[in-house]
Amino acid sequence: MNEKAIGVFDSGVGGLTVLKALIRRLPEESTVYLGDTARVPYGTKSPEVVTRYSLANARLLMRQEIKLLVVACNTASSVSLPALAQQLPFPVIGVIEPGAQAAAAATSTGRVGVIGTPGTIASGAYQSALGRNRPGAQVLARACPLFVPLAEEGWTEGEVVEAIARKDLVDFGPFGIDTLVLGCTHYPMLKGAIANVVGAGVKLVDSAETTATAVEALLAEHKLFAPKGSRPRRRYFVTDLPERFAEIGTRFLEQPVESAELVDIQM
Amino acid sequence: MNEKAIGVFDSGVGGLTVLKALIRRLPEESTVYLGDTARVPYGTKSPEVVTRYSLANARLLMRQEIKLLVVACNTASSVSLPALAQQLPFPVIGVIEPGAQAAAAATSTGRVGVIGTPGTIASGAYQSALGRNRPGAQVLARACPLFVPLAEEGWTEGEVVEAIARKDLVDFGPFGIDTLVLGCTHYPMLKGAIANVVGAGVKLVDSAETTATAVEALLAEHKLFAPKGSRPRRRYFVTDLPERFAEIGTRFLEQPVESAELVDIQM
Repeated sequence: MNEKAIGVFDSGVGGLTVLKALIRRLPEESTVYLGDTARVPYGTKSPEVVTRYSLANARLLMRQEIKLLVVACNTASSVSLPALAQQLPFPVIGVIEPGAQAAAAATSTGRVGVIGTPGTIASGAYQSALGRNRPGAQVLARACPLFVPLAEEGWTEGEVVEAIARKDLVDFGPFGIDTLVLGCTHYPMLKGAIANVVGAGVKLVDSAETTATAVEALLAEHKLFAPKGSRPRRRYFVTDLPERFAEIGTRFLEQPVESAELVDIQM
Repeated sequence: MNEKAIGVFDSGVGGLTVLKALIRRLPEESTVYLGDTARVPYGTKSPEVVTRYSLANARLLMRQEIKLLVVACNTASSVSLPALAQQLPFPVIGVIEPGAQAAAAATSTGRVGVIGTPGTIASGAYQSALGRNRPGAQVLARACPLFVPLAEEGWTEGEVVEAIARKDLVDFGPFGIDTLVLGCTHYPMLKGAIANVVGAGVKLVDSAETTATAVEALLAEHKLFAPKGSRPRRRYFVTDLPERFAEIGTRFLEQPVESAELVDIQM
């Protein structure tokens, strides 16, 4: 038994989709969320810089006494997990492996598409995780660099979004996929537009639910569950614009983000 | 006479449009450019964070022995000039005041539009600079948060860009402007699409040329010109992805960016 919180970080608000699934699955666990809003986005930055930011985020969460770290950002998960696992004294889990497992379970034909930020796609992390989870899978991966700014600005549907999606997703038609991994925590917000472009025959999978399942398994394995009947605490930290985070966060989480504390991350 | 370089910083590549105008006007002056590509974009961040980043950039350029600092980023110029001027032992100039002067000279009717990042528009810096330079001017300012990611991804023309521009610029039609300030160094890349939307009767002004003129005046005032016949040095620093910077930079500058040095900014 362990009353410490589960730590979760993301480059901004997107990781709240993962936190929402975690809270639903593990309602008695306390959580501490950090959104690195002063340095968002991570998806267009190098592996070295993203790893540096990830380590700084983890150090900040460590000072909040956490028992497990969830990297709720695909870009950070795809490049910085080894460095995090090496430096942290508790279990660390990313969203790529759970996302790949969900896709491997969803596909019938074994032809899977992956979309993500330029950083995630360039890392090849989904491509290799899918290869492990579904040997023989044929994977086509494409970067969609405008989806994050579109989602952040609330352009989530309509002609403009679909025109951009049609250009970014053009190769999936001829390749013939039956499953598409939304390899960025922002992309579920554009689900409708993406579905219109790839067609109803393609299953869209994201990693929020499977990540929550994997966290539950990890807590069981390490005997880290909170005592039964625990009253969970919810804390939020951001590196910039706390009011904006609380406002958007409430929409993402579908429950009130009372307030977010502004923190200064020393590199 | 002073052989030291002129320092220029921007959040990324956009400020190279200002550097280009500087080099054309003052070909014998050495220049040191810093693009803070690890923390781009600034336009969606708070004044406090942008000021913190601006001070760190200035400190890095100071170690390169500069004689004058050009803040070639509208967002940084709009919020951090007072802090920079207070802390630096040499003249500092931003792009807002020169841009406002150019607009004041261009308008006949005194009805001027300004577009920029959310940070620049929220600061009100252009609105007050235009009021000073053209008393009685009527100014309408609008944020265009997707223009920076569009420009960075090379979506600079066509239906998608114009559809986004039509939505962001919709209020300028009924307001009736004869001049539109491109209040972000990225926006000149979208000039064609913006012109199609606002119409041929509206003059588009940016601050690159007028900033170069203002730098020349400042060098004269402080007797800081390089000796006649000086062979200028061109140096480039970035905080992430130097190869990408050199590649895009060569296109922006229309002259080769031989190489960019990667630097780590300690906050």
